[in-house]
Amino acid sequence: MTGLPSIEKDFAQWYQEVVYQAELADQAPVRGCIVMRPYGYALWEEIQKYLDIKFKETGHQNAAFPLLIPLSFLQKEAEHVEGFAPEIAVVTHAGGKKLEEPLVIRPTSETIIHHMYARWIRSWRDLPVKLNQWCSVVRWEMRPRPFIRTTEFWWQEGHTAHETEAEAKQEAEQMHQLYHNFVQNILAIPAIAGVKPEHEKFAGADATYTIESMMRDGKAVQMCTSHRISQNFARAFDMKFQDKNGQIAYPYLTSWGCTTRLIGAMIMTHGDQKGLVLPPAIAPIQVVIIPIWKNETKEQVFAYVNNLANQLKQYCRIHVDTREHETPGAKFYEWELKGVPLRIEVGARDIAANIVTMVTRHSGEKKTVDLSICAQNITADLEQIQQDLFKQAQKRQDEKTIKTEALLQEFGPELQEKNGFFNVGWDGDPKAIDALKQYQGTIRCVLPSNNTTRCFFSGKPSKFDIIIAKSY
Amino acid sequence: MTGLPSIEKDFAQWYQEVVYQAELADQAPVRGCIVMRPYGYALWEEIQKYLDIKFKETGHQNAAFPLLIPLSFLQKEAEHVEGFAPEIAVVTHAGGKKLEEPLVIRPTSETIIHHMYARWIRSWRDLPVKLNQWCSVVRWEMRPRPFIRTTEFWWQEGHTAHETEAEAKQEAEQMHQLYHNFVQNILAIPAIAGVKPEHEKFAGADATYTIESMMRDGKAVQMCTSHRISQNFARAFDMKFQDKNGQIAYPYLTSWGCTTRLIGAMIMTHGDQKGLVLPPAIAPIQVVIIPIWKNETKEQVFAYVNNLANQLKQYCRIHVDTREHETPGAKFYEWELKGVPLRIEVGARDIAANIVTMVTRHSGEKKTVDLSICAQNITADLEQIQQDLFKQAQKRQDEKTIKTEALLQEFGPELQEKNGFFNVGWDGDPKAIDALKQYQGTIRCVLPSNNTTRCFFSGKPSKFDIIIAKSY
Repeated sequence: MTGLPSIEKDFAQWYQEVVYQAELADQAPVRGCIVMRPYGYALWEEIQKYLDIKFKETGHQNAAFPLLIPLSFLQKEAEHVEGFAPEIAVVTHAGGKKLEEPLVIRPTSETIIHHMYARWIRSWRDLPVKLNQWCSVVRWEMRPRPFIRTTEFWWQEGHTAHETEAEAKQEAEQMHQLYHNFVQNILAIPAIAGVKPEHEKFAGADATYTIESMMRDGKAVQMCTSHRISQNFARAFDMKFQDKNGQIAYPYLTSWGCTTRLIGAMIMTHGDQKGLVLPPAIAPIQVVIIPIWKNETKEQVFAYVNNLANQLKQYCRIHVDTREHETPGAKFYEWELKGVPLRIEVGARDIAANIVTMVTRHSGEKKTVDLSICAQNITADLEQIQQDLFKQAQKRQDEKTIKTEALLQEFGPELQEKNGFFNVGWDGDPKAIDALKQYQGTIRCVLPSNNTTRCFFSGKPSKFDIIIAKSY
Repeated sequence: MTGLPSIEKDFAQWYQEVVYQAELADQAPVRGCIVMRPYGYALWEEIQKYLDIKFKETGHQNAAFPLLIPLSFLQKEAEHVEGFAPEIAVVTHAGGKKLEEPLVIRPTSETIIHHMYARWIRSWRDLPVKLNQWCSVVRWEMRPRPFIRTTEFWWQEGHTAHETEAEAKQEAEQMHQLYHNFVQNILAIPAIAGVKPEHEKFAGADATYTIESMMRDGKAVQMCTSHRISQNFARAFDMKFQDKNGQIAYPYLTSWGCTTRLIGAMIMTHGDQKGLVLPPAIAPIQVVIIPIWKNETKEQVFAYVNNLANQLKQYCRIHVDTREHETPGAKFYEWELKGVPLRIEVGARDIAANIVTMVTRHSGEKKTVDLSICAQNITADLEQIQQDLFKQAQKRQDEKTIKTEALLQEFGPELQEKNGFFNVGWDGDPKAIDALKQYQGTIRCVLPSNNTTRCFFSGKPSKFDIIIAKSY
């Protein structure tokens, strides 16, 4: 174990080292790819477990579509192929032969799913179709960063087809809301919900809803997106149905997804100089118990710890670190690095007093608790930590969010040097987008509000409130 | 809806039609690939749920390794590349450029996982490593058949590394036993546990344990395999550790897996002329309730059915089919096709008598049950069906298993014409394997017993008891 680089001075290097040292992931021998190690994958399992239940509660079913897509499918929707062509991985040979038509490893599955929907949907009675799949996708990545941008990443992609535009809109907005709640309540990450401006939409979509969060360094991460695809793809894939009036119609479509980059965002939101800080709702281990013993007290300490563990495991996910070849100090260091929300230390003195010593990861606060009430209070303790983490992140985001009517040349240098969110007005003119680039800024989202008066670029009357930030 | 082909006269066609008509899967637009539709995927989810718990109970953790493997990795273990080379799909271009080294879509992940293990394992303290991943793999398939053989298929692959050969053997045997219990108790499929003969082993393994089951037509399906890979791969990937004595040693390895072909085996074991028959332990819907109403009784029937559904859902997975545009007869047909173990019909006459009508899918048995005891008895009803299905399949397997000391030329024609399992002796001479081919027979497994006296091919003294069958 070595220490971590300074989180203040070299955030990028700190991030990379946390990912590797906490054994969340490792570099794979293929450029831009990672291996999700058990501790990192356990985080993804918790995310999957939570979302999968929510998806099913809202009437979605899981399915599995092929990994390989004929190249010609991508070409059916003009904007779609333009968006993805530079990133695709192409299979040209298989079974010992050159293929007649190259196959693409899915960068996303709209094309193949819509092809199948066109076969399955015949009548309004077949609608809505609401499917989701958990899988990995491949987009060739030039600037990889573990979890945040990798050539292969894991995600879920929901794809739905509806009779009316209103229903499709409701679906996309429902998923947008579901993601927003998830990010805030489970990942404890404050998030801004808005829509993407025209030039940042999903390739081929009518509208893209987005959830944007601020990382510790003031840059933005796009957390989850939901798209209204309306009828573009339905026409491209000849997906037709007979409506209630006996007329032939095209369904309205949506797609929505979130990826393993959520793990990266969690690290970059809550982490500190000691390493990971995991919100209890998602932590694979919520409480770690460290018995501290000498040869003569070992039996007594282990009995006490086993009793405690048996009580606690009804309420939370626990781990007892009984390794003999590591010192308690080395264990403290390791579980702090791995971000376990609560650590319980038990030594001979605790036993004599019938207490346990409890240390909160994010605050470092240390307290002693009577053994008799430790287990029954643990749920409330963890809930408090969950709320504290959210508040701490919210405070940081508020401090680094500047609401301004200033023009780009005035606030641009601050954006470039100090990062942060800039809440400004925009008249919708795309010229502003290029101008932003010189400060490395991007329009993260258009807000539902409209409180600004002038455009940050042209100075003309504002049409939208937007968030500008540098992004990952 | 159209009827199914005759299960007796054209089993292959029957199988294909059941898969498509019951909406388990559909053909994908890439040769040899399928789409797992929600009903088929739900079966896979049930399989995953059960096995994942068992894997974790036995100390395994999940992880995710990359889909893409450098071609050179496959070449490190000579037997391995020979086994897989003809089946691989190769990515030659990505990110708009030709790759310097081609990448292979994983046909199995030993090579990339062992490469990572070599980085992670330094000392005996790092052992054992016991990981599993749920994913899909690609092997180019010339004779595809949905679920049974597809170019892309979904599976789990466990990969473990151990300090001693004894531990690795214990691990492989533990997983072999776990699979055997799963196949028999959950899928209700009788299964023979044995080891593969030398020429049928996993490419590069020392020993392959297998579970073989007989389908309705008398052919065999290999259900799950567990491999002892010993030190071959560890040497190929330079996976070394310092043992307790300070010496450099190579770990002993295992791998084990089962695939979506289990779904195919379930269909081919339990299905009948009406379609699927699903064992309750794995059925996504265990009980379907069909309300039968006229306009004037609708309210009353729906209230009765809702009350029943609320009682039942504490005990089992239920679905209430309230569709208005389908007749009860069409619904009976559909849920029989989809193999739901129990159907409950509720009409006005049932309500008057305070009963429900219950129809068992596999036997067609129809009985009336008092509403007051329906819910509390449902677990026992489903358990009985589970046992009946196993017994029915066991009876069929017994009837089609011939234990004989006859020579190949005597029983070969029967094997070729009528299928079935032939329990015979073998002296281990590989010449027998080629001779078997003329009758389309293969050695499915070597049994733990040794009761035979002479070899089915040479007539010399037998060394092994084996099972011979045609296989999928």
